[in-house]
Amino acid sequence: MQFTDAQIAEFDERGFLFLPEQFTREEIAPLRAEAERIYALDREEVWRESSGVARTAFAAHTYSEGFRRLGAHPRLVKPVMQLLDGHVYMHQYKVNAKAAFDGEVWQWHQDYGTWQRDDDMPEPRAMNIAVFLDEVTAANGPLMFIPKSHKRGVFAAGHDLQTTSYPLWTLDRATVSRLADEGGIEVPTGPPGSVVLFHGNLVHASPPNISPWDRSIVYLSLCEVSNHIRRFKRAEWIAHRDFTPIEPLDDDCLLELARQTHAAAE
Amino acid sequence: MQFTDAQIAEFDERGFLFLPEQFTREEIAPLRAEAERIYALDREEVWRESSGVARTAFAAHTYSEGFRRLGAHPRLVKPVMQLLDGHVYMHQYKVNAKAAFDGEVWQWHQDYGTWQRDDDMPEPRAMNIAVFLDEVTAANGPLMFIPKSHKRGVFAAGHDLQTTSYPLWTLDRATVSRLADEGGIEVPTGPPGSVVLFHGNLVHASPPNISPWDRSIVYLSLCEVSNHIRRFKRAEWIAHRDFTPIEPLDDDCLLELARQTHAAAE
Repeated sequence: MQFTDAQIAEFDERGFLFLPEQFTREEIAPLRAEAERIYALDREEVWRESSGVARTAFAAHTYSEGFRRLGAHPRLVKPVMQLLDGHVYMHQYKVNAKAAFDGEVWQWHQDYGTWQRDDDMPEPRAMNIAVFLDEVTAANGPLMFIPKSHKRGVFAAGHDLQTTSYPLWTLDRATVSRLADEGGIEVPTGPPGSVVLFHGNLVHASPPNISPWDRSIVYLSLCEVSNHIRRFKRAEWIAHRDFTPIEPLDDDCLLELARQTHAAAE
Repeated sequence: MQFTDAQIAEFDERGFLFLPEQFTREEIAPLRAEAERIYALDREEVWRESSGVARTAFAAHTYSEGFRRLGAHPRLVKPVMQLLDGHVYMHQYKVNAKAAFDGEVWQWHQDYGTWQRDDDMPEPRAMNIAVFLDEVTAANGPLMFIPKSHKRGVFAAGHDLQTTSYPLWTLDRATVSRLADEGGIEVPTGPPGSVVLFHGNLVHASPPNISPWDRSIVYLSLCEVSNHIRRFKRAEWIAHRDFTPIEPLDDDCLLELARQTHAAAE
């Protein structure tokens, strides 16, 4: 996959690209099952909501074959290499659960704001590319983006240690209001296997999931290798310290796994 | 306005009808301003979220000329008279604020469940017709409906006195999951002046509003007159005791008010 000039222009202008159905249901199914297995693990990488259900499984690519393959999938890594114009390493890897009924809010924030403040990443030459493991609808806590909000650098933020179990640098209300009045709010929804790619400075949030449907999304935070972090304050499994360039796997790497899983179950 | 046979069949099958832009922006503008005035009043009818912002203004038709007119508007009263096949009175009247950032959840519930349990309303011959005062989007705490969930009568419910400032009879998770797996979840969104009409037994909810945009909706709960409530446990301004049939006003009643307001301001 190579982005067209029109897609690159849209990304520059709006700060994100939504790419429905980049992976088939056959490719996604084993990852969905793997997410459930991981959410049940008693590991320090798996953070929980106040109710006890999983919120985020960090670094799942280091202890799950399916998520290892997804983390080096050419349909995810190559587009980001194209946009960042260089080799990339995995700065952070999250499987975010947003469980039915219990999944809690992620307040308005910029990811690069955190990477800069906590990890001393020099420039916003890093971005998230996210894969829906479930259908995302208006009902199950979808991601909300403020288009164009990536064009103003890093906004002042407060360290929110109260709202949820996970500390987050969040923007003040006046800033969010002003940005949304200018750029609007977009809520990409679509079937499992859809992908959304967004600039490290794009302001985003997601509401609680009050629906009876789970909503897992995997986030690869990819950073251009020369832009690696300088400070190692956070745990290694939150902000990785291995800056080795990712070598994209073959395009059928997930399909192969799906077929192995399927064959093993027969 | 008279519903077509197709619309009546859709209502019977799905339990709600969404009618975009039934009122013009000129008609809605004075009501939007009036809602802000009312939210700031220190009255027992105005319930507040834990943050202090308004959650619900009950009985606003009794202390606001604009909301009085809306409560007898032929575009709202006549459709419900048609569906309930008789004269109707105002059982409850709410202006629900769902304020930007602070508006809290309404858990999954059936309105008639409350009207039966608390007010001894004999039959579900009553329903809500709601008017959007703001644009409702996927981002600002939209209503979520489970189609077909009105066909099974009143479900068991627990009295939720914890989650928000307002007590509500809410459904258990297993019931919500089963109904949503069968009927799906619909999230009507649209501009100010849009109308949604739903069966008293239709299961619905709305999530917190984490967006920077307010989202007010007015709910007329209209009951067929012979089906009036028998128990007067709740405050009169929550469950009204005046069973006088509503006489619909003229179709231009809001427009007239808008023009008076406009003229007075010049």
